[in-house]
Amino acid sequence: MAKAKNAISPTRSENYPEWYQQVVRAADLAESSPVRGCMVIKPWGCALWENMQGVLDGMFKATGHKNAYFPLFIPKRFLEKEAEHVDGFAKECAVVTHHRLEAGPDGGLVPAGELDEPLVVRPTSETIIGDAFSRWVESYRDLPLLINQWANVVRWEMRTRLFLRTAEFLWQEGHTVHATSEEAREHTIRMLNVYADFARDTMALPVITGEKTAAERFPGAVETFCIEGMMQDRKALQAGTSHFLGQNFSRAQEIQFLDENGERQHAWTTSWGVSTRLIGALIMTHADDDGLILPPRLAPVHVVIMPITFKSDEPEKIINYCHKLADDLRVLDFHGRHLEIEIDDRDVRGGEKNWSWVKKGVPIRIEVGPRDMADDALFTARRDRPAKDKESIPRATFLSEVTTMLDEIQQNLFDRALAFREEHTHEIDTESDFRDFFESPAGEPVPIHGGFALTHFNGDEAVEEKIKNEMGVTVRCIPMEDGTPGTCPFSGEPSDKRVVWAKSY
Amino acid sequence: MAKAKNAISPTRSENYPEWYQQVVRAADLAESSPVRGCMVIKPWGCALWENMQGVLDGMFKATGHKNAYFPLFIPKRFLEKEAEHVDGFAKECAVVTHHRLEAGPDGGLVPAGELDEPLVVRPTSETIIGDAFSRWVESYRDLPLLINQWANVVRWEMRTRLFLRTAEFLWQEGHTVHATSEEAREHTIRMLNVYADFARDTMALPVITGEKTAAERFPGAVETFCIEGMMQDRKALQAGTSHFLGQNFSRAQEIQFLDENGERQHAWTTSWGVSTRLIGALIMTHADDDGLILPPRLAPVHVVIMPITFKSDEPEKIINYCHKLADDLRVLDFHGRHLEIEIDDRDVRGGEKNWSWVKKGVPIRIEVGPRDMADDALFTARRDRPAKDKESIPRATFLSEVTTMLDEIQQNLFDRALAFREEHTHEIDTESDFRDFFESPAGEPVPIHGGFALTHFNGDEAVEEKIKNEMGVTVRCIPMEDGTPGTCPFSGEPSDKRVVWAKSY
Repeated sequence: MAKAKNAISPTRSENYPEWYQQVVRAADLAESSPVRGCMVIKPWGCALWENMQGVLDGMFKATGHKNAYFPLFIPKRFLEKEAEHVDGFAKECAVVTHHRLEAGPDGGLVPAGELDEPLVVRPTSETIIGDAFSRWVESYRDLPLLINQWANVVRWEMRTRLFLRTAEFLWQEGHTVHATSEEAREHTIRMLNVYADFARDTMALPVITGEKTAAERFPGAVETFCIEGMMQDRKALQAGTSHFLGQNFSRAQEIQFLDENGERQHAWTTSWGVSTRLIGALIMTHADDDGLILPPRLAPVHVVIMPITFKSDEPEKIINYCHKLADDLRVLDFHGRHLEIEIDDRDVRGGEKNWSWVKKGVPIRIEVGPRDMADDALFTARRDRPAKDKESIPRATFLSEVTTMLDEIQQNLFDRALAFREEHTHEIDTESDFRDFFESPAGEPVPIHGGFALTHFNGDEAVEEKIKNEMGVTVRCIPMEDGTPGTCPFSGEPSDKRVVWAKSY
Repeated sequence: MAKAKNAISPTRSENYPEWYQQVVRAADLAESSPVRGCMVIKPWGCALWENMQGVLDGMFKATGHKNAYFPLFIPKRFLEKEAEHVDGFAKECAVVTHHRLEAGPDGGLVPAGELDEPLVVRPTSETIIGDAFSRWVESYRDLPLLINQWANVVRWEMRTRLFLRTAEFLWQEGHTVHATSEEAREHTIRMLNVYADFARDTMALPVITGEKTAAERFPGAVETFCIEGMMQDRKALQAGTSHFLGQNFSRAQEIQFLDENGERQHAWTTSWGVSTRLIGALIMTHADDDGLILPPRLAPVHVVIMPITFKSDEPEKIINYCHKLADDLRVLDFHGRHLEIEIDDRDVRGGEKNWSWVKKGVPIRIEVGPRDMADDALFTARRDRPAKDKESIPRATFLSEVTTMLDEIQQNLFDRALAFREEHTHEIDTESDFRDFFESPAGEPVPIHGGFALTHFNGDEAVEEKIKNEMGVTVRCIPMEDGTPGTCPFSGEPSDKRVVWAKSY
């Protein structure tokens, strides 16, 4: 493996979906479990998710939210209260029907203690949280109510892929209650922007913010907004959503308040969420044919130090030198947390060891052998550069520049991803150009997914449906940014601005 | 309420179980939900749990563990592999039998898509994690494997009480794999001591560490160890357990490794956990008839500042003074985190406002009125003292002493709890004294639960069973500490050392 041209096989251009699975495996992020569609998140993946949680949680608290925790189970009658909502989720609910196991006729255990009412394992919590909010909210003084929950949810998916689509996943769901429509809608956009900031600044992921068309709206929402990123196969990935729920759920769950005039009103609610799917987005945005590349702001380890002792008479001197270096690095601050340093003194071959960290995506790798120690220099490699591109840097220089170097890596990842997106984003003005854009050129060994097509669109749902069915292309979002009016190439009707079309995950 | 003698009614001596419920409610920690036995953890309770998580997570990482996440669902056949384990949990399992809802004959939704094999919502994860470990462990080089999971679990309890016993609860479960029995057993004790340290240093909760008798052992364990605290009604509460699982689960799930001689061996495993039950322990150890009392090390808010503006011509000056004070406090470090300060400028009556923070258990309350501001002094109250016991402290003095004051409060809570436990712990040498100790005196309006009785015991399971059935008293643990030999008062047989008997939660 260490001698192969690339650490990951197949490469992106050979077989993108399989490359993805191999990057997940090579970085030891997660694995499938014997439970249909449920994954095991391994320590490296879990640490990455915890780092995402830490940053997001701080952003939610800074915008006035508090965390709470609500039941895993939702009574069936709660789901049924909001008609569109239950339509959206009924087909993929894990249903608890019994509360014990007992010996069956053939000796094995069988479900027993049937419940009076089935319970659904939460696919999302609008209804069960709405029930609590109906008790918590009494008057306008209790508003806005700004709550977030970190939780696991279950949506029974038939075709699953690690992180991107799993039956159980981890996420956060924000739920807020407001006295007016305007305030609730403003909050929906505020949280959308929190997600966009997080994607850009922390994940190095450029995203387009926009509104979903009716076809892609959250079941029960009045408006759904999203952040959309472009993956390296040019498909779009929805990385987070923020929903303006109007009074739909406050009517379903009777969330009412006394206004300043003492009149009873239904409140206005929002919900918004991001999930472990972000890890999928991160992989497909930054990883290369050598494996994962982690944005330094999220890396569980910023710098790995590998003592090279096999040629040395005094290996413990090198080990000690590395430990001293690690101690000096660990006191440094990088965006509010100390640098995380790993010393890898495992007894494995140097090449294999080095490649294991390449594949895990650690931003900076350092090798220290007898010669480096004698020179007081560090043999350094950056994960945003080719794996064999290493340079010797004086120890003191490295210590003074390491956080700048990490910031550079973070910025490079963003710049690359943005350049890639821009390269594959085109304004298109005729239907035939549109079809050409999304059609793979003849003779290509693997499908090419076009990219983002920006076209005018008059919003006709039949057109949208037809394009989806014929080409597998959908409106990813109607951008928040202002645009200029034009003509919809599909209908010839006038259009306010261009929308973003793409194939998507 | 503000004028009542105590903020909580009934008081502990009037009705302890109801007092507990009222403390939870008055502090706004949690509430019951419409889902049988499942609670809603409200923001104040959630913040408390997050603080516990933060400290414990640091202790787990410092002892070499990494976090991972495993599926919520456990295939029925996995549970069945370990006979004692399934016996212990089969009676209280939430069972998922279907994966969608569809319109039934009467219009409502009914479960559909029956699963080939029912899935159990994890009551604990030995079997599903063991399955992953059987893939992760190949050779002695992979050991020890030290993993922790933060998760929700479900045990279908018929009689539930907020935090103490709920159908769904939050917890951590550590799972480790070792090459030898000795090393696994040592690790079991190491984690027991981590729990004891956490209870003592962070929760201000004195605990006895010891081993469970066979009757109280975790289903499938070879040995179960625990930390036991004494609540203010003198009943014991098991606050954490650590299990030496021998090879029981490694045989059930085939966790095998190649040893240094290239021979295949079954590994040795441990598991250990604490849960949101700790919040119940914290309440019942420290709270008083005015409500919750939080140990400063866990308090979501260390100091609440209440501007008293109703007598002032320039209320905004007082508010500004309070904000400046908060800023000066927030930079102070208290055991590795910054002081958390809340300014309560809600428009509610001063008495009600003050009592709301008393009931929430915030360690230090400060009132600032025009006079205080003029004197540059703070009217200060400590939650470890009576609510009306307030003193004026110069601002500068307060700033230089606040963290010491918080440490004193923390220590006072521990000292009080320890003194209470010692007062109600007695060495008992005859069966009749033992019965007298646990019998409520005639004429007492409420039951008195005795306390901890330390007796010699020869380990006879029939004796233990008889005492449990007749008196509701069990062996809480066989203490880890050395003891002196003696004679068991129940059997007249020789005994190595005294054990701890008590009524318990």
